[in-house]
Amino acid sequence: MYFELGSREENSGQMKQSDLFVKTLKEDPKDEESLNAKLLMRAGFVYKVMAGVYALLPLGLRAMRKIEGIIREEMESMGGSEILMSALQPKANWETTGRWNDLDVLFRFTSYYSKNEYVLGPTHEEEVTPILKQHIFSYRDLPAYVFQFQNKFRDEKRAKSGLLRGREFFMKDFYSFHADEADLDEYYDRMAEAYKRVFERLGIGDKTYLTFASGGTFAKYSHEFQTVTPAGEDIIYICDKCAIAVNEEVIGDMDHACPQCASKELRQEKSIEVGNIFKLKDKYSAPFELSFKDNEGVEKPVLMGCYGIGVNRCLGTIVEASHDDKGIVWPESVAPFRFHLIEMKPGLGEALYREMIADGYEVLYDDRDVSAGEKFKDADLLGIPWRLVVSERNKEKIEIKRRNEEQTLLVDYADIRRLK
Amino acid sequence: MYFELGSREENSGQMKQSDLFVKTLKEDPKDEESLNAKLLMRAGFVYKVMAGVYALLPLGLRAMRKIEGIIREEMESMGGSEILMSALQPKANWETTGRWNDLDVLFRFTSYYSKNEYVLGPTHEEEVTPILKQHIFSYRDLPAYVFQFQNKFRDEKRAKSGLLRGREFFMKDFYSFHADEADLDEYYDRMAEAYKRVFERLGIGDKTYLTFASGGTFAKYSHEFQTVTPAGEDIIYICDKCAIAVNEEVIGDMDHACPQCASKELRQEKSIEVGNIFKLKDKYSAPFELSFKDNEGVEKPVLMGCYGIGVNRCLGTIVEASHDDKGIVWPESVAPFRFHLIEMKPGLGEALYREMIADGYEVLYDDRDVSAGEKFKDADLLGIPWRLVVSERNKEKIEIKRRNEEQTLLVDYADIRRLK
Repeated sequence: MYFELGSREENSGQMKQSDLFVKTLKEDPKDEESLNAKLLMRAGFVYKVMAGVYALLPLGLRAMRKIEGIIREEMESMGGSEILMSALQPKANWETTGRWNDLDVLFRFTSYYSKNEYVLGPTHEEEVTPILKQHIFSYRDLPAYVFQFQNKFRDEKRAKSGLLRGREFFMKDFYSFHADEADLDEYYDRMAEAYKRVFERLGIGDKTYLTFASGGTFAKYSHEFQTVTPAGEDIIYICDKCAIAVNEEVIGDMDHACPQCASKELRQEKSIEVGNIFKLKDKYSAPFELSFKDNEGVEKPVLMGCYGIGVNRCLGTIVEASHDDKGIVWPESVAPFRFHLIEMKPGLGEALYREMIADGYEVLYDDRDVSAGEKFKDADLLGIPWRLVVSERNKEKIEIKRRNEEQTLLVDYADIRRLK
Repeated sequence: MYFELGSREENSGQMKQSDLFVKTLKEDPKDEESLNAKLLMRAGFVYKVMAGVYALLPLGLRAMRKIEGIIREEMESMGGSEILMSALQPKANWETTGRWNDLDVLFRFTSYYSKNEYVLGPTHEEEVTPILKQHIFSYRDLPAYVFQFQNKFRDEKRAKSGLLRGREFFMKDFYSFHADEADLDEYYDRMAEAYKRVFERLGIGDKTYLTFASGGTFAKYSHEFQTVTPAGEDIIYICDKCAIAVNEEVIGDMDHACPQCASKELRQEKSIEVGNIFKLKDKYSAPFELSFKDNEGVEKPVLMGCYGIGVNRCLGTIVEASHDDKGIVWPESVAPFRFHLIEMKPGLGEALYREMIADGYEVLYDDRDVSAGEKFKDADLLGIPWRLVVSERNKEKIEIKRRNEEQTLLVDYADIRRLK
């Protein structure tokens, strides 16, 4: 394997395929049921460690960082301060909220040395609430907004859906802290809009519905964002007129009607929950005694909201939503590279590759000494949006093709520049 | 708390202190012994979850991302492909290498549902070797270089050194794969140089020594990078002439002499291990049967090297190495911001803040309505390299002061621009 030392090509947007240590697989992996994991494994984006646990290989990590970047931008636009909490959490915090015994997906274990009992965080209300308690005292300290990207852990009963349901998974969790319900409500509605922007930018906006779901003890309903896919584990009822949906679990409470327009013409679909937003109110601030003094000096509980998005679940969902029988079809916003440059003879693509680097394009350059057939097959499997081919036959021209279209065109580099 | 929605100031290099939900602490936290954690907690960079486990608050995360960025650049310059492995690992892999029973720092536990036994990875040879086995077959696939930034877990007997020794910690681990010893040796030496560049750029180069340490079964010596600090848990013997050191554990084997110049004039110091590099040879490739066919078709074992840097350990080490009785003194490369703009009256700094944003400076703007004394005290505690003060007294000028110097100067904005 050849790598240009010092060039830092890999993460600055370009990569030679001969530098990638990863190989595509000719056949579906045997021990995998789910379509998203099969495709991601065959394309060399992920490696399966065991059921529900996947490692991200270079192209998979690049795609996940794209998703992370889009979510981060939208969360910062909502005023969020990024922090990074711990996976290891003390038993005491989970006893405070009663979830030490109540939550069946907790991985719990005891330190051999300290004899302390730990939880591997499946969510972080038990950590974020005490953190904010150290900093919120007065109405002047509110509202406050924090979020993180972090690995979470759940002892799932079944983990057969690839990246859609992991025992270890990468998640964005956002927590908001408010002085009163009106402020929480207003922020919650704005966050729902931010979530719509996220899924729109991820290329799954047209298949993703704001969905009414069970609200637990502290709110009548919560809202999920559900993406329609046959691989989904949930059932939702979509009102096409309002472009919202209702989760099967509460459709009875709603008399099988759209909560917005009361229409009973609902379309039933399988779907996967890619995000959720939740009014926690004082569910966690009460047990941790997170309160503040209002402008008259009266002590009041802080009200909370929480907002999650599964980052590698989004990765899996995008693959479920966007593929064909040849491989993955990445949306441009999430693709590990925008262009896949294929040369039909060693060295033919080098000049164009250099030019594209100089112009700042994200390009994967297939400089491998393998057959054209293998290169085309791998290009379809990898699913990069634009395929460029340089051959001896068309010396002065570049053959360009979109991954999701059949038509090829012979163009000049100047035409590619006009794509943006 | 006021935050300009949509401005995305926070992570693009600017922040208003009134937007930061974090408050500094007036006194040392009671349940903390270590100096680095005390300072980082008082300055609001970290939150202590429990012994050996810390959450990173916004300023702490910014500093850690700076360290991560420097390390990433140097690892990419060594040809590394970034991946992201899992924290959860299967028992079987650790039985394959014999470390399931041998490694006393392993957190081990059993899934309630699957009854599978897991390890929380303290290191990743048991995962990276099987991953590369899927992709390395021939001498043409070698060498290969992969690395990751990831949370690791160790069931430490004692965790009283703050960020220097965590039960959960953020680490860069790099693995190299070679066809023969000459290639491994050459790469190992170049990696030692890359490590020197990392610690130089982190501002601890002058206190960090390449240190001969125990090599285990497969190499006579390994090399650590040890930073001299009274908080260190190791003892090293420094040869000032050669600027290298020997760990106490092997100084006897070396007859108490410098391995390079044989001098016996060695200086004994306490130090903390911020990185290590290790020739693993076939220690892990043999049990996992990671082999390749050479150019004559002969099957041979792949030889490995591994190279670690503790990222939040570096954060703690920098604080130990660079502080005074007023607070932290960040090196410019790691500081969460380059400038700390303080206004003596509300609104006075706004125009300069806007100008600095437009010019792309990293600036924290203390726009809080608190006393000048409190602002100066917090500025010293936070340790941002350049303090700028705008006051009514010096309307047209800016008072500038370095964190580690006493002298203040009255300058124009044009002078600040010339700093770069």
